[in-house]
Amino acid sequence: ELLESVIAFFQPKLLAGRKVVLTAGPTFEAIDPVRGITNSSSGKMGYALARACARAGAEVVLVSGPVALPAPVGVRRVAVQSALEMRDAVFANLSGASIFIGVAAVADYRPLKAAEHKVKKSGDTMQLTLTLNPDILAEVAALPEPPFCVGFAAESRELDTYAQGKRVAKRLPLLVGNLVQDGLGGDDNEVVLYDENGRYPLGRSSKAELAKRIVDHLAALLNGGAQREE
Amino acid sequence: ELLESVIAFFQPKLLAGRKVVLTAGPTFEAIDPVRGITNSSSGKMGYALARACARAGAEVVLVSGPVALPAPVGVRRVAVQSALEMRDAVFANLSGASIFIGVAAVADYRPLKAAEHKVKKSGDTMQLTLTLNPDILAEVAALPEPPFCVGFAAESRELDTYAQGKRVAKRLPLLVGNLVQDGLGGDDNEVVLYDENGRYPLGRSSKAELAKRIVDHLAALLNGGAQREE
Repeated sequence: ELLESVIAFFQPKLLAGRKVVLTAGPTFEAIDPVRGITNSSSGKMGYALARACARAGAEVVLVSGPVALPAPVGVRRVAVQSALEMRDAVFANLSGASIFIGVAAVADYRPLKAAEHKVKKSGDTMQLTLTLNPDILAEVAALPEPPFCVGFAAESRELDTYAQGKRVAKRLPLLVGNLVQDGLGGDDNEVVLYDENGRYPLGRSSKAELAKRIVDHLAALLNGGAQREE
Repeated sequence: ELLESVIAFFQPKLLAGRKVVLTAGPTFEAIDPVRGITNSSSGKMGYALARACARAGAEVVLVSGPVALPAPVGVRRVAVQSALEMRDAVFANLSGASIFIGVAAVADYRPLKAAEHKVKKSGDTMQLTLTLNPDILAEVAALPEPPFCVGFAAESRELDTYAQGKRVAKRLPLLVGNLVQDGLGGDDNEVVLYDENGRYPLGRSSKAELAKRIVDHLAALLNGGAQREE
């Protein structure tokens, strides 16, 4: 905590007085008490961003799916499992927030009905009916007076097309794109920022360093300053 | 490593000269490059057992699904994702093993076909066709000259019925049963041992202590000694 205080002390307070709500990690959509649908998000990028926001002076609420990471110092963590729980936790904490960052890899679909008891295997195949989950980021961005919304897109191909498409469709001022093969689970990543002025490849770096640069970029957009050089 | 050596030095070498193959953790059955079906196994019980076997003098191969735990000292870890990969790794390492312990929460079903690229959401519902995974423990136990096989059963109810049923159906000399609500993800658990002589509740304890007592019990059965008092 002391080290963290020293590091934070020397950071420019780009987000001073701002409240940031972030989501991070995967969601876990129960099939029964032990099984579920999830994804391979480690939560590292979201946690790095939460830490970077806290160091930049923001009040930070981190709504986190199940991950094996400690809560960053100075960040309030709300632990959730499913997308529905994540949405509830986001909206319960959104009051007064000027920034919302959706890093979580929210499961698009959940089983239509979770079984109360462990399902016994029977038969060679099984049909699972899935139903669409809420799109938390799109819901927040569609509020009458939305916070500044930042999205993430992890794609396995055609990053520019999917990422800019997602940014425009959800009306996000800023979107961070990456290829899953570049970053998933590791400590490094390679991301590209997309805003209404264009694309800004940040190159390969540690998730901590990328988080800091994302915060710089978002603060510049938010504070209405000139676009920083990347 | 020094501490581990000292602890191991003072343990009775109940499994000296034995090779143990264990499975631990969940499996991850890909739906596409980012999504999949998994379960809530933390891997803690399997890793504790691997450590206890190593301390008892065994050569240990730990075939592990995706977990956030370091490999125990003196244990050779083989990392896998899916049930099919886990089965391959088990059979590739089974030669010379006198004990097989299936702790992994292997997914019963996997998607019939994993998509090569991330599936885009479309439509309010989605049908997922699942196909039965191999039962690794049953396959090992059904070998002409099987190693001494230990199974695990995590149930949400009727533990005695399901656990003894599973033990008899798969012809296991020893099965460890627990209720998911007692142990999942935590550092403690409450388990019951089932063998052909009956049931032995071990009470609530740390997973490390339970692992040691399971090794004691299994060594007593394996070494043909009189049944230890529980």
